[in-house]
Amino acid sequence: MNKVITISREYGSGGRELGIKLSEAFGIPFYDKELIALAAQDGKVEKSILQINDEVSPDLTSYSSYAVPPHYQIAMSHQIFDLQSKVIRELAAKGPCVIVGRCADSILDDSFNLFIYSDIKYRVQRKREIDRDTPPAKMEEFIRSIDKKRKEYYEYYTGKIWGMASHYHLCLDSGLVGIDGCLETALAYIKHVN
Amino acid sequence: MNKVITISREYGSGGRELGIKLSEAFGIPFYDKELIALAAQDGKVEKSILQINDEVSPDLTSYSSYAVPPHYQIAMSHQIFDLQSKVIRELAAKGPCVIVGRCADSILDDSFNLFIYSDIKYRVQRKREIDRDTPPAKMEEFIRSIDKKRKEYYEYYTGKIWGMASHYHLCLDSGLVGIDGCLETALAYIKHVN
Repeated sequence: MNKVITISREYGSGGRELGIKLSEAFGIPFYDKELIALAAQDGKVEKSILQINDEVSPDLTSYSSYAVPPHYQIAMSHQIFDLQSKVIRELAAKGPCVIVGRCADSILDDSFNLFIYSDIKYRVQRKREIDRDTPPAKMEEFIRSIDKKRKEYYEYYTGKIWGMASHYHLCLDSGLVGIDGCLETALAYIKHVN
Repeated sequence: MNKVITISREYGSGGRELGIKLSEAFGIPFYDKELIALAAQDGKVEKSILQINDEVSPDLTSYSSYAVPPHYQIAMSHQIFDLQSKVIRELAAKGPCVIVGRCADSILDDSFNLFIYSDIKYRVQRKREIDRDTPPAKMEEFIRSIDKKRKEYYEYYTGKIWGMASHYHLCLDSGLVGIDGCLETALAYIKHVN
């Protein structure tokens, strides 16, 4: 694989796991939350601020809040997006790697773009395997809230519809075949990419 | 494969070709335009009417036309959709097969749903391989007009957005890997479907 692989994902569908497996299969670096630490190295924005605002678009519904004025929120959100975009472009310039989320598919020009998703039932089940304390209904609510944030972030910064097949080269429902099934499918596709 | 395979497709992306190859791989029947002949056997709507209205939603913009009153257009369109839906359900009840287009993914409850697409450049090139007389710009215009009809038809009858990844189990950009690449990828995925 001579391209950067970007993975966009619905929360709980296994995007991070698939990304790790793909990076291992090709022996290339993997970046997901690791991008936050790399962006923090720049020194312009504190790591804690980067963590809180990771993949979050400015909340334009909170105009009435005096705590964080909207123009400050927007400026900060844009600064973080620009910083992460710079880091993503620098990583891509070094050679093939796997990048999860953060609009990388839209930031890079010649990446191989993958989208992974599945029905809510499968995602609740997957997430509850590592967190039995959260009841299914509460977990579903949480999953939907993260998806909403990812969707808003993607659409705010790219102007494109999140999850529209034509933005990606390959879209995989992990619910029907699991992460290993997605891995084998992605490898079969990538084998044919020039 | 113990499920019906449905294929939704952007015009010129190779949905029909992929469907034929999949039906050959599994030794199961293939239906695309063949559905028109099957629907005509019912005798309720003439074959020529079925052909003209195949995958076309009622044109609600032509209210000013006195030739075909809108209520008649809508009634006919619904009758044809119901007829094709009935044929699709009857075929599915007989056992696994491949069905291209005609909202089959939405009509059937337990099908394996595939979406195939690619950028317009690749599709113009593919279509011009069998029709050199049509200039590229004209071909592009024609392709976009067919896509528009398919999109309108799908969205009118299903209430869902055409080409949204989550409506399908697997979405393939044929431009990057060709039809054989799509076939191998689909087979890799289907191998893991229970």
